[in-house]
Amino acid sequence: MASDSTLNHAYAVILAGGSGTRFWPVSRRQRPKQLLEGVFGPGTLLERTMARLGSLIPPERIYIFTNTLLKKQIEGLLPQIPPEQIVAEPAARNTAPTLGLAAHEIFRRDPAGIMVVLPSDHLIAKPVMFRRVLRAALRWANTEGRSVLVGLKPTSAHTGFGYLQKGELAGEFQGQRIYKVESFKEKPSAHVAQRYVASGRYLWNGGMFVWRASTLIANLIRFKPKMARGLGRIAESGGATSINVLNRVYPRLEKISIDYAVAEKADEVYAVAADIGWSDVGSWSEVYALRPKDVEGNARPRHSFCLKAKGNLIVSDMFVAAVGVRDLIIVQTSDAILVGNRHQAQDVGKAVAAMESKGWKRLR
Amino acid sequence: MASDSTLNHAYAVILAGGSGTRFWPVSRRQRPKQLLEGVFGPGTLLERTMARLGSLIPPERIYIFTNTLLKKQIEGLLPQIPPEQIVAEPAARNTAPTLGLAAHEIFRRDPAGIMVVLPSDHLIAKPVMFRRVLRAALRWANTEGRSVLVGLKPTSAHTGFGYLQKGELAGEFQGQRIYKVESFKEKPSAHVAQRYVASGRYLWNGGMFVWRASTLIANLIRFKPKMARGLGRIAESGGATSINVLNRVYPRLEKISIDYAVAEKADEVYAVAADIGWSDVGSWSEVYALRPKDVEGNARPRHSFCLKAKGNLIVSDMFVAAVGVRDLIIVQTSDAILVGNRHQAQDVGKAVAAMESKGWKRLR
Repeated sequence: MASDSTLNHAYAVILAGGSGTRFWPVSRRQRPKQLLEGVFGPGTLLERTMARLGSLIPPERIYIFTNTLLKKQIEGLLPQIPPEQIVAEPAARNTAPTLGLAAHEIFRRDPAGIMVVLPSDHLIAKPVMFRRVLRAALRWANTEGRSVLVGLKPTSAHTGFGYLQKGELAGEFQGQRIYKVESFKEKPSAHVAQRYVASGRYLWNGGMFVWRASTLIANLIRFKPKMARGLGRIAESGGATSINVLNRVYPRLEKISIDYAVAEKADEVYAVAADIGWSDVGSWSEVYALRPKDVEGNARPRHSFCLKAKGNLIVSDMFVAAVGVRDLIIVQTSDAILVGNRHQAQDVGKAVAAMESKGWKRLR
Repeated sequence: MASDSTLNHAYAVILAGGSGTRFWPVSRRQRPKQLLEGVFGPGTLLERTMARLGSLIPPERIYIFTNTLLKKQIEGLLPQIPPEQIVAEPAARNTAPTLGLAAHEIFRRDPAGIMVVLPSDHLIAKPVMFRRVLRAALRWANTEGRSVLVGLKPTSAHTGFGYLQKGELAGEFQGQRIYKVESFKEKPSAHVAQRYVASGRYLWNGGMFVWRASTLIANLIRFKPKMARGLGRIAESGGATSINVLNRVYPRLEKISIDYAVAEKADEVYAVAADIGWSDVGSWSEVYALRPKDVEGNARPRHSFCLKAKGNLIVSDMFVAAVGVRDLIIVQTSDAILVGNRHQAQDVGKAVAAMESKGWKRLR
C-alpha cells in the first residue's frame, strides 16, 4: 500500500474535454458523452469518475480539464471542486499540451505532486480494485523518472484499443503487479489482436497515467522542447488562470497525444496489470451490452413494443414499436432519430462526420 | 360504350369507413389510410377516388359510406357531395349491410339506378382505362340479375387477395372483356397463387362491384332474408337519415362481407378483366415500391442521411440517420416511431393489434 505521505501528494487530472460523435444523436457538442445523464447508468460518467476516487484523492486535489463550451456545466455539476481547478483549454490540442499544463499547475502547488490522469467517460465495475490499482501505481510512480500506466487485462481481442507489451515484472503491491512496458502497439488487426490476447503478454492501454508532475515536465523538456518552452511561458505568467497568455500561447502548441509525445519514448515506463471491470463504452453497441434485456434480447424502455424483434437497443422518450427487426440501435432525441446496425456501431461516428460535411451542422 | 341512358343511372358508392392498422403509426382510428394526406402522393386517397370518376359519375350521384368518427372530416374534405349522401353507419357490420343500405338509398331515388361500389383507399395508375372498364361494367350490369366485378389482371402471385376464376367470355365493349365468374378463391398459398397467375385464368378480386340497386336488393332477399328485412324496415322509415330506426336496427344486422353474403352465391356473376394499374397499397412495403429512391434504393425525405444503408423507407418529419441498415421501414409521427422489416410489412397490423391488447390504446 502507498504510504500516507505518497497519498498526500496524489492529484487527479480528469480529462473532460471530449466531444465525440459515437453517441449521436444523444451526445452533441454541448452535451458530450461524459455529461450524458442516465445513458450509462445513474448520473453522468464524469460524476462517477470523481466519485470512484472515493477518499483516495479528495476534491480539493482534483483538477478537471475541459473546453470553454463545457466549463460552466461542469462547475454546476461538481460544486465540490474549487472552480479554479476546472480549467477550460482555449483550443483542443490533444492530451500532451493538456497534461503539460496540468503538470505545471500541480508542480507549482506541490513540487512532490503525483498526477493520476483519468479519462472522464469510462466505466469501471470494480471501484475497490481500481483504488487498489491506483495505490500501487502511485507508490511505484513516486520515484523521479518513472511513468506508470494502468494497463487493462484484455477480456476480448478488441481492435479499438492500443496494446502495451509487458516486459519483466518490476514490483508488486497488494497483489497488483507492475511490469516494465516493452513496447506500445497501435490498434491491431483482428488477427493480431487475437494473437496478443492468446499470448497473455499484452494489456490494453486505457489512457490512465500516473507520474510525478516533475517527471512529466522533465520528459516534455527532453522529448518536446518547443512545447515545454510554451508551457513554461504560461507557468511563469501564473498558469492556467492567466487567460491572456494562455489564449495566446496554448493554441499554438503542437497537437499531439501524450502517448506519442512522451509515454512511448520515455525510459522508465511501467504498467500495472489491472482487472477492474473497465469499459470505455465506446459505442452504442457497448451500451447494449451493459443494459438488462427482455427474453428476446431487446434492451428497451417500458414504452416500447417488440414483435418478432430480437437483440435491439431502444433509447427513446417516444413510444417505439420494433417489428421483425434484429440487432438494431434505435435512438430518438427531440430532433433526430438514429437507426443503425448494432454490429457496426462504430459507423455512427463516421455518419455524423459525413452529415456535418453535408451541411447538417445544427444536429451536431 | 355504355349508352347515355345507362350513364344517367350510374351511382357511385364509395366505402370510406375503414380503420386499418397497417399504416400505423401514421394511420390512426381518427385518421385512417383513406384520409392520410401526402403519404400515397398528393391529396388523400378518398379525394382521388372521387376525382378518378371524372365526369363519368358526378358528385350529386356519389354516396360515401363511413363511420360516425369520420363523417365530419369527410364532409369538410368533399364539399361537392351533398351532405346527406355522406352516411355514417352506427356500427361496423362489414360490407353486406353497408351495400344493402346503399342499394335502398339509390333505389328510392332511381329505381333504375346502377351502383358502382368502390373502396376509398386504393390507387389506380390508369384512370382513363379505369373509366373505360367502368363503362363496360355499367353497360353489362344494366340488365336485371347481373352482378359485375372489376377483376384485376394479376401482376404478381400475391397471396393477400382473393382470386376470381374466369369462365366463358360473355361480352366485350371497347376492348374490355367480360367473363362469367367460374368461382371465387380465398387468399391462396404462395404455391397456389403462382399456379393461378401462370394459368392466365384468374383475376384478383379488388372489391369493386357494379350492379343495379334492384339486383342487389333481390339477391339480399334471396340469400340473406333476415338482413333484407332489417334493411327494408330502415328503408320504409325513410332510409339512412332516419337516425332512430337506423341506430336501432342496423347494429343488429349480420356482420358479413358482400362477397360471402351475395357475390359468391348469386347466379349471374361476371368480371371485367381490368388492366388499370391498380394497387391496394396494403402496407408500407407498397408505399416503398411507389416512391422515388436514391441510388442506394432508399425512399427518404431530404432531411435524412444514409450511410451504408440500402432499400429503406423513411417517413418522418424529424431528421433520421440510417447507418448500416437494409430494407427497413422507419416511420415517425409526433408520438410514436415504427422500425420494421420491409419484407414483413404485413406484421405491422399484427403488432398494432397486439399493442392494443397490451394496453397501448392511446396509440391506436
